[in-house]
Amino acid sequence: MLRKPFDRIPAALTATVDIHVTFDLLDPMKVVYHGNYARFLEAARSALLDRIGYGYPQMEASGYAWPVVDMTVRFCAPARIGDRLIAKAGIVSAEEKLLIAYEIRRASDGVLLTRAETVQMAVEAATGTTQWEVPRILLEKLSNALHQN
Amino acid sequence: MLRKPFDRIPAALTATVDIHVTFDLLDPMKVVYHGNYARFLEAARSALLDRIGYGYPQMEASGYAWPVVDMTVRFCAPARIGDRLIAKAGIVSAEEKLLIAYEIRRASDGVLLTRAETVQMAVEAATGTTQWEVPRILLEKLSNALHQN
Amino acid sequence: MLRKPFDRIPAALTATVDIHVTFDLLDPMKVVYHGNYARFLEAARSALLDRIGYGYPQMEASGYAWPVVDMTVRFCAPARIGDRLIAKAGIVSAEEKLLIAYEIRRASDGVLLTRAETVQMAVEAATGTTQWEVPRILLEKLSNALHQN
Amino acid sequence: MLRKPFDRIPAALTATVDIHVTFDLLDPMKVVYHGNYARFLEAARSALLDRIGYGYPQMEASGYAWPVVDMTVRFCAPARIGDRLIAKAGIVSAEEKLLIAYEIRRASDGVLLTRAETVQMAVEAATGTTQWEVPRILLEKLSNALHQN
Repeated sequence: MLRKPFDRIPAALTATVDIHVTFDLLDPMKVVYHGNYARFLEAARSALLDRIGYGYPQMEASGYAWPVVDMTVRFCAPARIGDRLIAKAGIVSAEEKLLIAYEIRRASDGVLLTRAETVQMAVEAATGTTQWEVPRILLEKLSNALHQN
Repeated sequence: MLRKPFDRIPAALTATVDIHVTFDLLDPMKVVYHGNYARFLEAARSALLDRIGYGYPQMEASGYAWPVVDMTVRFCAPARIGDRLIAKAGIVSAEEKLLIAYEIRRASDGVLLTRAETVQMAVEAATGTTQWEVPRILLEKLSNALHQN
Repeated sequence: MLRKPFDRIPAALTATVDIHVTFDLLDPMKVVYHGNYARFLEAARSALLDRIGYGYPQMEASGYAWPVVDMTVRFCAPARIGDRLIAKAGIVSAEEKLLIAYEIRRASDGVLLTRAETVQMAVEAATGTTQWEVPRILLEKLSNALHQN
Repeated sequence: MLRKPFDRIPAALTATVDIHVTFDLLDPMKVVYHGNYARFLEAARSALLDRIGYGYPQMEASGYAWPVVDMTVRFCAPARIGDRLIAKAGIVSAEEKLLIAYEIRRASDGVLLTRAETVQMAVEAATGTTQWEVPRILLEKLSNALHQN
């Protein structure tokens, strides 16, 4: 169910962020608490949406909120204190919903730690109405991102 | 993929906890940040494992850790400040892995907010070896829970 | 600097909440991570402000936000998994600023785990202007709370 | 009470980290939730202790844990989404206790957002005994750090 999509996603529709594992992220097993990965996905998604020019301020200006409606995370290997992680996000599809895939790897050796997907739907902020297709503004941003690169 | 399993789970293998939505859980949309739900699942799972006599201290004494290897969350409706939530967890299966299902409902009207599943595998603490079947200790705990009730 | 004020605070200006220590709150030392206590203070403060009729919705309706401008926490003893904690908040003063004191005790034996204080200032939401006295609405709420009891 | 100590701390006993403000850190006021700053302090402290060669692995190897026993935070100005923050930590003193001071500034214009202090005491891991002086190992690390620079 969790795809390996990054070989099929244009680089212009991906972004990566670095994460440094500190004490506050650890659980009693001395590995990053699994519940903290949603924040790592957020960081990668944020960088991706900024990159295509549709970050949080632009979303707000466009009149849509984009709540996450589905989140799936597979934990393959643990992260430990001092590790540098590379979290990558890429846009898989944007039709009815916005589907983003993620990979988190340990920087030192590239080992895959986590694979994830999120699904977001647009909600018109003024009315609270869920949109059953992604709004045109996102499609324009994606198109621009693809042609700039 | 996210089942509606609670009608098929014996009550003795379920548990619920109450959650009160406070300011710290909210995001700028004034709803509970989706990344916080992993903690709600943890609270319900913790109550469930305590109930069957295999809470964290017993896990530790048994020589196994139980990392979450898969987590899937579907966000159906948002939770807002002041809401009382009821988070329910139930054991779906315990064969190769421990599969737990979750439902989070608003207490005031029973509306379903979130459905989720987690998968855990046993890891022998002394050796770090992943177990490809759930250890006997868990099966005994489940059996005891079912016969006590 | 951290007072022991609860013997001088009228009961009507205090509130308590219960907290159950679960796995997600722990750090590698197997005690509650110190950074999580801000959430416990939030829970107790939230109950307190609800009790006097000036919870988050009423704050918002009154046209003021109340950011925390100072937070001091003293960690006296650690909390461990399975502990039930009682977090108490009480209003120490409300003149230029709103000063709230906190105590967190282990429920089983009453041992003091944490003592804390927060200072909040009112900010007029419409203009972003910090108020150098607490607004009249809070004083009225405090007066009502004291006379109802 | 919160000093402005950085002009008196040797550069060798300071460290800085960058923090990027993402959506998950925000509260409904659209500013970073005050409870999240403990993590920013952790990140800066972690960099500082790594720098002097007494990071978490070295602490553990030395047989001491260093719980935070006091934390004081003053919130001067809010951080908003997209802000880059610079969190600086520096060792103020290491006699009975380890006292670290912090400043968090907005990278774009250097405006001071937060000032903080933490106090840590050494606890002998094997016995759980609190030490009423900082152990010699820390003093050696500090001395080495000062003479290398």
